[in-house]
Amino acid sequence: MPDTGLSPTPRTRHNRLREEGRTDRADLYAVLRAGLVAHLGVPAEPGVMVIPTVYGFDLENVYVHGSVASQSLAARAEYCLTITVVDGLVLARSVFEHSVNYRSAMIYAVPQVVTDAAEKLTGLRLVSEHLAPGQWDYVRQPSRKELAATRLLALPLAEASVKVRTGPPDDGGSEDAALGLWAGELPIDARWLKPVADPALPAGIMPPAHILDRAGNEVYRG
Amino acid sequence: MPDTGLSPTPRTRHNRLREEGRTDRADLYAVLRAGLVAHLGVPAEPGVMVIPTVYGFDLENVYVHGSVASQSLAARAEYCLTITVVDGLVLARSVFEHSVNYRSAMIYAVPQVVTDAAEKLTGLRLVSEHLAPGQWDYVRQPSRKELAATRLLALPLAEASVKVRTGPPDDGGSEDAALGLWAGELPIDARWLKPVADPALPAGIMPPAHILDRAGNEVYRG
Repeated sequence: MPDTGLSPTPRTRHNRLREEGRTDRADLYAVLRAGLVAHLGVPAEPGVMVIPTVYGFDLENVYVHGSVASQSLAARAEYCLTITVVDGLVLARSVFEHSVNYRSAMIYAVPQVVTDAAEKLTGLRLVSEHLAPGQWDYVRQPSRKELAATRLLALPLAEASVKVRTGPPDDGGSEDAALGLWAGELPIDARWLKPVADPALPAGIMPPAHILDRAGNEVYRG
Repeated sequence: MPDTGLSPTPRTRHNRLREEGRTDRADLYAVLRAGLVAHLGVPAEPGVMVIPTVYGFDLENVYVHGSVASQSLAARAEYCLTITVVDGLVLARSVFEHSVNYRSAMIYAVPQVVTDAAEKLTGLRLVSEHLAPGQWDYVRQPSRKELAATRLLALPLAEASVKVRTGPPDDGGSEDAALGLWAGELPIDARWLKPVADPALPAGIMPPAHILDRAGNEVYRG
């Protein structure tokens, strides 16, 4: 996909204070890389469903498993997929100025059911590699039957809203600064722990390097 | 609220494999305690919006800031608020059996705009205390003007779907076990780091104990 910006539409225009809206595709990819799971908003009758889901992506699409999103697919309804990475709390001098440092992307798209077997394999591999790089080639890959039993949705990366908040609270120059209260950030650190072997595993099978090397690394890589 | 179960409706009935559906209110509260931010699904025209948001709760309601959810409030449309805590990856012997260990709650409700000033203060305090216990009493509390400028939504905790997955992959007894591959869990550890002072802060102001003591503790307390 060409290095175009993200289409600005009324809902993706940024109009809230203290948040920085981003409009480059590179910013969208950075949030997609940094996130671990996404939340998929599915129109339902009545209302909506918000379903946590794993995902993968390339330059043109984000892929999610589609097992729970049946009715509205036929209607070609528009979904919203949101990825959020929380980096920490923003602790201000007043309740009102408290905030959260985060990176988020909201992607709007009509999902397409991936039917082509080759594209499905490619999409599933993207999901797998996003979660655990190296696993796809290490483990047994999908059989024809398993592939048929898996529904994969593609959401085109055409319309998205990317927001990022970083840094200290905004009331350092306000009259509340005279209160003499501590203010700042309380960051979050999310890391992979050491792998835990399946109790069913025979003795002597070591985790592969791509898993073992991950322990201690940041979960959010963005 | 009485210690009733969560109303089982077609959409909150659990019908997926390898996940355990929970039906006690206590399980819902445990996920609400464990989560940090929620994803609010808002019916929109067209489609839906999924908005990351902070939240707080008591036994009867979950409270969220309502600044971005205008149009559909008037229509008394039903929202979905989802809280997800990801505990780790489930690494199986085949791509197909890979999974995620997680705890999630999907709450369905028609949000009510909180207009009563006392209830609004109580709700905002619940949000604040959920994120950073102790901050509400440490910092300057909302002025009348700030309170008026804050929209708070209450979602009754009446209909919800709680799902939890824990433990190793499910293919330990399958024929894939003969492949001799490593399988197990790769857990995630999310902790608060040391607080970072606002550069605007004069020298000599120390973080309060409720912030300082948090560093090194798990982010997900559930």
